[in-house]
Amino acid sequence: MKDFPMVFDLLNPEIIPSHVDNHIIRKLSSLRGQFYDNKAFEDMLAIEDTVIYEVYEIKRPEVAGEMLMGISIVHPGKVGQEFFMTKGHYHTILETAEVYYCMRGEGFMVMENPEGEFSIECLSPGRVLYVPPRWAHRSICTSRQDDLITFFVYPADAGHDYGTIEDRGFHKMVIEKQNSIEFIDNPKWNK
Amino acid sequence: MKDFPMVFDLLNPEIIPSHVDNHIIRKLSSLRGQFYDNKAFEDMLAIEDTVIYEVYEIKRPEVAGEMLMGISIVHPGKVGQEFFMTKGHYHTILETAEVYYCMRGEGFMVMENPEGEFSIECLSPGRVLYVPPRWAHRSICTSRQDDLITFFVYPADAGHDYGTIEDRGFHKMVIEKQNSIEFIDNPKWNK
Repeated sequence: MKDFPMVFDLLNPEIIPSHVDNHIIRKLSSLRGQFYDNKAFEDMLAIEDTVIYEVYEIKRPEVAGEMLMGISIVHPGKVGQEFFMTKGHYHTILETAEVYYCMRGEGFMVMENPEGEFSIECLSPGRVLYVPPRWAHRSICTSRQDDLITFFVYPADAGHDYGTIEDRGFHKMVIEKQNSIEFIDNPKWNK
Repeated sequence: MKDFPMVFDLLNPEIIPSHVDNHIIRKLSSLRGQFYDNKAFEDMLAIEDTVIYEVYEIKRPEVAGEMLMGISIVHPGKVGQEFFMTKGHYHTILETAEVYYCMRGEGFMVMENPEGEFSIECLSPGRVLYVPPRWAHRSICTSRQDDLITFFVYPADAGHDYGTIEDRGFHKMVIEKQNSIEFIDNPKWNK
């Protein structure tokens, strides 16, 4: 009988099974240029290259028909007024979708497409979000103390295009202002 | 701002959002020939064409890069000694995978591939199961009173091949015998 060890336990997402073989750690320095407040960024980095988010994924052949799945953990924190967030990416094969399921925490998925449309969707426990083909996406943790934990599935041949977002940014930023969460235009966004 | 209504709430899977536009209801009669005990099947059908399982899916273009997702609900019950189950299927594009996440209930995923390998994996709340490309799969509810509820994601171009399983059956059956659950060889299985 064949063994299927490719399993996560989403009731205990902080316990990562030993067979999960791809652990990606993104530190502050890898997000250089993405946060609005450059001074706050450099001041923070001078103290510590903080871990902003982590991804645990199971390696599978990166071919059409396979799917990649894993757990994304965005830690709580801010750079200036701006909440911790993932790099955000398009898929290299633009016409590929992604499914996100939020297990823990609170936050938002900021999305936009090459046609100039954009959207901000709430991530809260229980919620499944379908990111359609052509939509770049970034998850943002807005909790003050809890990780934002999501489970994701996407076509294994999709690939990641981080460069377009690194160059262009997203239309929208999520910031904390006078103790409330605000969506504002990103002054760095350049089409 | 574009609207993304394509959302499920997996903390409340029994509440199906109104935008879920594909509701599939499988009654006993649609599983004719799949259960081992023909007499128990016909006796049961003579009384009522019971709903065995239901699927709620969101319609998306059935093309590569899109994904289909939804909720599967297998009701509790037995035909003779054999637990209620889905029809089970290969994908028409054999080289496509599927991800299952179990939210409620208890049961098993019975799987096999054209090479003659087979496997039975436990489904319990929290558990994510990756069904790799080439593996036919059937979910089986073994609870006496609760639905088996899973969330699934698969490539939108995969398609469903039910015919191969209708002709051949699965290697393994899951039955109740003297109040315990047993896996036995399916006498109807024909390679």
